[in-house]
Amino acid sequence: MEEASEAQVCGRGVEERIWKKEVVMVSRPQGMPVEANFEVRRSELVFQVPPPPGFLLVKVLWLSVDPYLREIMNEDNGLTVIPPFQIGQPVFAGSISKVLASSDPKFKEGNIVQTISPVADYALISSEFFSIDKIEHTHAINVPLNQYLGVLGFPGLTAWVGLNVITQLQANEEVFISAAAGAVGLLAGQLAKLKGCRVVGSAGTDEKVRVLKEVYHFDEAFNYKTEKDLNLTLKRYFPSGFDVYFENVGGNTLEAALENIRRKGRIIACGMISQYNKEYKEREGVRNLMHVIGKSLKMEGFMVGDYWHMRDDFIKEVGELLQQGKISYHMDILGRGIDEFTKAFVGLLGGKNIGKAVLLTDDGETP
Amino acid sequence: MEEASEAQVCGRGVEERIWKKEVVMVSRPQGMPVEANFEVRRSELVFQVPPPPGFLLVKVLWLSVDPYLREIMNEDNGLTVIPPFQIGQPVFAGSISKVLASSDPKFKEGNIVQTISPVADYALISSEFFSIDKIEHTHAINVPLNQYLGVLGFPGLTAWVGLNVITQLQANEEVFISAAAGAVGLLAGQLAKLKGCRVVGSAGTDEKVRVLKEVYHFDEAFNYKTEKDLNLTLKRYFPSGFDVYFENVGGNTLEAALENIRRKGRIIACGMISQYNKEYKEREGVRNLMHVIGKSLKMEGFMVGDYWHMRDDFIKEVGELLQQGKISYHMDILGRGIDEFTKAFVGLLGGKNIGKAVLLTDDGETP
Repeated sequence: MEEASEAQVCGRGVEERIWKKEVVMVSRPQGMPVEANFEVRRSELVFQVPPPPGFLLVKVLWLSVDPYLREIMNEDNGLTVIPPFQIGQPVFAGSISKVLASSDPKFKEGNIVQTISPVADYALISSEFFSIDKIEHTHAINVPLNQYLGVLGFPGLTAWVGLNVITQLQANEEVFISAAAGAVGLLAGQLAKLKGCRVVGSAGTDEKVRVLKEVYHFDEAFNYKTEKDLNLTLKRYFPSGFDVYFENVGGNTLEAALENIRRKGRIIACGMISQYNKEYKEREGVRNLMHVIGKSLKMEGFMVGDYWHMRDDFIKEVGELLQQGKISYHMDILGRGIDEFTKAFVGLLGGKNIGKAVLLTDDGETP
Repeated sequence: MEEASEAQVCGRGVEERIWKKEVVMVSRPQGMPVEANFEVRRSELVFQVPPPPGFLLVKVLWLSVDPYLREIMNEDNGLTVIPPFQIGQPVFAGSISKVLASSDPKFKEGNIVQTISPVADYALISSEFFSIDKIEHTHAINVPLNQYLGVLGFPGLTAWVGLNVITQLQANEEVFISAAAGAVGLLAGQLAKLKGCRVVGSAGTDEKVRVLKEVYHFDEAFNYKTEKDLNLTLKRYFPSGFDVYFENVGGNTLEAALENIRRKGRIIACGMISQYNKEYKEREGVRNLMHVIGKSLKMEGFMVGDYWHMRDDFIKEVGELLQQGKISYHMDILGRGIDEFTKAFVGLLGGKNIGKAVLLTDDGETP
């Protein structure tokens, strides 16, 4: 997008310049990413005021730090709608930004927008991107702005769409959620509990298990890393099976879930984090898909971007639940400043954080 | 069921005896079944006329020989609704039988019934089984009786339900069918063509490929055994991907299909014949299920027994197509007499036959 701006820099408006910092992928991660795969590049952003048609100049306030970025770093990432990150080019992430200059009448200076942007402090972004939206609900709902990257953002919408649209969860069903202490799992578990379901979650540390049970009132939770045989673990927590599996993990957790899900069960395929760091040949193949037939299962994957049009309904419902204190949420600020993004992202894949991980892009005051 | 009859044999009705032959599983197959896993047992069937309430005495005319029987021979068969065959007990299969005696007013002597029965020449069967039905359409449709085990029976219903109910196939979609020359695939391909779809099938011999293209007018067909890389093969036949995969095979065919199916594609999970003979640890795990998410795929398995109530609609539609000559069908009579069942079944898994495989239980005249 910067290129587009520079190419059109002469002939109209006032030319301005800002020093910006952005995170660039300098080599493709092999397996677990390391900080050396990325570099912070400082460069001068040259732009016009007003910006070229269809663009906004924004100051990025908050960046979302997500495991799925790892998948987009693979050349063959399996995401037909998201092209892989390119070497030498910036990494993109979900963000909350403030509009500094706009040529689109839908957005005015000072507006707060939620979108996908480069991992940078300043950027020229498209005002016509399918998932750009003004945040106008903040005052009414009275939540911190960064929640629009979490419980009121993509992860929240993902949980809400998964349960309400993809699987149409019913009262009294039994639900298993993997990566339950993650940004999506935390809300999925709470929404399922509010529907009157029995909910069991898996997570990767004892602290996460404690939080799931004590803070988020999951019926049960377990640490999959200390269980010897996930198949037996699931039999223990669901002696007669479960109806719905909210799948965030893949690999052998999916195999164990297929063994234990009930006939006519539904699988919401939302993420397979256990496989993102693995080369194709190293991946844990799933060997019991015959259960899909034998148990008449339905497995459906989705990309939350396809449900962006439902965002208002979602924010109304979940915003009210937040205001009423019926749901709560962990927000984990992993760093301050663009320089800290890489470390935050690599650390995130280590699996320690609970709830939504974000980065404050400025090192000044929290917006 | 014989046991039930023998226990009630005194006190009412007329006691009669018939010598029957039935196929018993004497050991569980490990990998590929061999004839020594089975034995033909001759024994006296003692019964009353009329039979005990809820039972029919039948003479079995035709038996269906199906690959899925192999799966039911595994102790842990993954079919929650079908208990595994037991050692020392008869094997069951789809059958067409003639009622010799009935205690149920819904069935009269001389009626022809379609159901699941022991692999035997005579049997006492339940008249209350969920999938027992009189065949009353034969005269109107003018097809041989054994077609009720094929194009008008379970395999036909499976193809019809898969396309019409599970995936709601639309005109102009592109469809890939594996095991296309099998009992289900043959009808699925023809129904998809009649809907105006482009259809490509895979099969395991050059002769099957020829028949698919020349007799059944598949747009393309290929022999998966002589292809080096199924992923590239599918790219060749579907340069821009396909919308629907009718899955009968599993394993690396499913992997290749996941690579090539389009965004929002649908997978009808109907069978995974490549995996039936394999121990859990030997199975080809599917390593690219991440596409289910990245491409927003829907994969749905089903057991045709759950759609038995749609049988009248199905027979009306497909029967008419048969009468009008718009579809045709291969029927492969693998043997005559109960003694030949085992050889026919073991041979079937060798993968040579085209269309529906059946056995004529009597060595007399074709019914």
